[in-house]
Amino acid sequence: MSKQSRLDAVISLAKRRGFVFPSGDIYGGTRSAWDYGPLGAELKENIKRQWWDHFVRGRADMVGLDSSVILPTRVWEASGHVATFTDPLVESLHTHKRYRADHLIEAYTAKHGHPPVNGLADVNDPETGEPGAWTEPQQFSGLMKTYLGPVDNEAGLHYLRPETAQGIFINFAHVVQAARRRPPFGIGQIGKAFRNEITPGNFIFRTREFEQMEIEYFVRPEDADAAFRQWVEDAWAWFLDLGLHEENLRRYDVPEDDRAHYSAGTIDVEYRFGFEGNPWGELMGIANRTDYDLRSHTEASGEDLSYFDQRSGERYIPYVIEPSFGLTRSLMAFLVDAYDEEEVPNAKGGTDRRTVLHLDPRLAPVKVAVLPLSRNERLSPMARELADRLRRHWNVQFDDAGAIGRRYRRQDEIGTPFAITVDFDSLDDHAVTVRERDSMQQQRIPLDEVEGQLAQHLIGA
Amino acid sequence: MSKQSRLDAVISLAKRRGFVFPSGDIYGGTRSAWDYGPLGAELKENIKRQWWDHFVRGRADMVGLDSSVILPTRVWEASGHVATFTDPLVESLHTHKRYRADHLIEAYTAKHGHPPVNGLADVNDPETGEPGAWTEPQQFSGLMKTYLGPVDNEAGLHYLRPETAQGIFINFAHVVQAARRRPPFGIGQIGKAFRNEITPGNFIFRTREFEQMEIEYFVRPEDADAAFRQWVEDAWAWFLDLGLHEENLRRYDVPEDDRAHYSAGTIDVEYRFGFEGNPWGELMGIANRTDYDLRSHTEASGEDLSYFDQRSGERYIPYVIEPSFGLTRSLMAFLVDAYDEEEVPNAKGGTDRRTVLHLDPRLAPVKVAVLPLSRNERLSPMARELADRLRRHWNVQFDDAGAIGRRYRRQDEIGTPFAITVDFDSLDDHAVTVRERDSMQQQRIPLDEVEGQLAQHLIGA
Repeated sequence: MSKQSRLDAVISLAKRRGFVFPSGDIYGGTRSAWDYGPLGAELKENIKRQWWDHFVRGRADMVGLDSSVILPTRVWEASGHVATFTDPLVESLHTHKRYRADHLIEAYTAKHGHPPVNGLADVNDPETGEPGAWTEPQQFSGLMKTYLGPVDNEAGLHYLRPETAQGIFINFAHVVQAARRRPPFGIGQIGKAFRNEITPGNFIFRTREFEQMEIEYFVRPEDADAAFRQWVEDAWAWFLDLGLHEENLRRYDVPEDDRAHYSAGTIDVEYRFGFEGNPWGELMGIANRTDYDLRSHTEASGEDLSYFDQRSGERYIPYVIEPSFGLTRSLMAFLVDAYDEEEVPNAKGGTDRRTVLHLDPRLAPVKVAVLPLSRNERLSPMARELADRLRRHWNVQFDDAGAIGRRYRRQDEIGTPFAITVDFDSLDDHAVTVRERDSMQQQRIPLDEVEGQLAQHLIGA
Repeated sequence: MSKQSRLDAVISLAKRRGFVFPSGDIYGGTRSAWDYGPLGAELKENIKRQWWDHFVRGRADMVGLDSSVILPTRVWEASGHVATFTDPLVESLHTHKRYRADHLIEAYTAKHGHPPVNGLADVNDPETGEPGAWTEPQQFSGLMKTYLGPVDNEAGLHYLRPETAQGIFINFAHVVQAARRRPPFGIGQIGKAFRNEITPGNFIFRTREFEQMEIEYFVRPEDADAAFRQWVEDAWAWFLDLGLHEENLRRYDVPEDDRAHYSAGTIDVEYRFGFEGNPWGELMGIANRTDYDLRSHTEASGEDLSYFDQRSGERYIPYVIEPSFGLTRSLMAFLVDAYDEEEVPNAKGGTDRRTVLHLDPRLAPVKVAVLPLSRNERLSPMARELADRLRRHWNVQFDDAGAIGRRYRRQDEIGTPFAITVDFDSLDDHAVTVRERDSMQQQRIPLDEVEGQLAQHLIGA
């Protein structure tokens, strides 16, 4: 299966089984947003909890924060977003639709294997497929505006945050004082961010509304390089620990010309999503933001955001190392990476094809499925009682509809690590059959040992 | 301590210890938004996890969802928000500031014990304190606008959701199909909502940006009344189970005239926050929304959102029971409810005053504090090793600064259930002293039993 058709298969599965729905579908939908259905909401929640427990609660040098989406406008002026968070936009003279010039060039390059020799003049109009005719590029702000207060005027103009990071910087001094922290220490935050993307696309990869998991790690300037390298390793290890295949990950050392102006070094971690053209996409980035942010906010606010180290008597503006994870992109990567179609032996001596998500049990949206062999007045209550008991610990599905083989396939397809069959023998031997998703091995386990045995396999889940 | 000064004390503690910071404080702040510091972010995360695990994962009849903040504009037209989500606004002829007429009347009533006899004519200008002069009330939309796409025009006009509920209704048919659900079943969602409140206030009680935990529970019309009553009980029980004192809760059966137009019955659960004037505030509401929502979206979208029951052969539009929890209000209630100032015996035979948050251990932001008796080259490594071990399971604070009594107080004040002292005896007996927050009882426990014993007290935490 080619990587591209594999990506299509994942997207199709995601829609069909309720991981991701096109947002506002009954109203014709929108290209720019997606809603997470029951399984997607669970998967997303699991990724968030793993991240928070690992990077925030699990580390002595980290604390959490949860700042507002709408911050005072002066924050975005100081950060440079109001002036420079712009993209070059061109308008088609034929259709009067607008496009990001750099995205048109990228798409051409991906398709033809080289950039257009004559620039945009070589690029066909995406709408018509005919040679395009374009206006000169104009800078267009990627910030989403809103108005607060009783009148829609400049005084009420506010922006939705395009990144969660600034909410951390402006709370730096508060956190140092209230949480009694000294560098090196970091602040982690998970939350939504909004960008007025002109050309959203590639499923949930580029959307106007998305979620980030960001860390701003504050260090003495001389410790910045070492901390930067360590965070690249720590971030990389987190993805591997949760099951991403290392051959689908790579590091891209962003050249100086392509880096944000504040960055003294950026490494993007890219995942092989399998997009047409260039199959790789950015999963996260680690940047050395230097003292740019705390210095900018010091200058703009008049509040001193330097740190005074009482032990050494030094005063300095900390450098910031920023590992910025895309939550929605991580979810997409975990899905793509876990997806497989396998030939498996069937009961008749032949083979069946099964679709399976080899998700790490900690991420799997459903941990256990309880499947009474048939709808029966004695099996059903026994199975329901078991499901209710397990539901105190894990997300559990009860399914008594259809042939048992089909029910196994339904669970494989959504990555459920364990399926438990309650059969007629269970009424006598008070035991059930537990099937493991990847090996498809089945094991007979006494009813009163099920919880304990599953708990051993679902540690941290 | 009066309830009002108690509320002030809680707010002061919340700011000082880093539960809640005024958003954008270094830029002069904003009345309308708050950021959650390290402890507030943990407390909020704990409430969310408790809610999700109890109401979504913990129930066979519930699934989760996570829909977009920005939905197609037609959603808000169909729901009635564009036309009717408005408030009466008046402008002061003296200061040209605008106010919500109903809030001015409410504040007057709370202060004087009766509504103003001559309406707004009796109400003083909040800015000047002098008798006010007001324009006629005008209807003002509470929806926050934003513009998507390359041009700021009507075509790009979108709204930020003022409630998470509509994202559930428009996905109803998708969920029924993908998750194979039949009524009675419910969909739960946690997320931010935005309202252009003209007079935000009362700390985090009324803000422009807030978080909701909403359930839309779909039932056959004839089952709506029973489901409504059951949800009132279930929601009530959840707050009690997590420690709210029942005497600080009350139910308010909203009279028909004050209910939303779609509601056939609404019960507000109110908490005694201790506001000036009327000390009670709405914590959550349970509404019987009838078939209003699915019917409205069916009519507006042309998609049939009725449910066909294959078993009975019936087709019907489900009724919706909506338990809508305020997450940020719940956080405030848990803080206020847990707050206490106590006289406790000290070592000198007298008494000390301590501030303590009697938070349920499942909600407490920090579960365990590890306190080496002094900074010492043998105690410190032992204590750090213990803290690192416990941090694999829980949020742990390590504190070696200051007198031990002061460190206990610091932990009491943020509601940490257990504080562990590593002292010089520990070096010999390999045991530590575990102090429980509420009883202040101390117990000597062998080092290798600490994890297991704490785990028993921190079930579900």
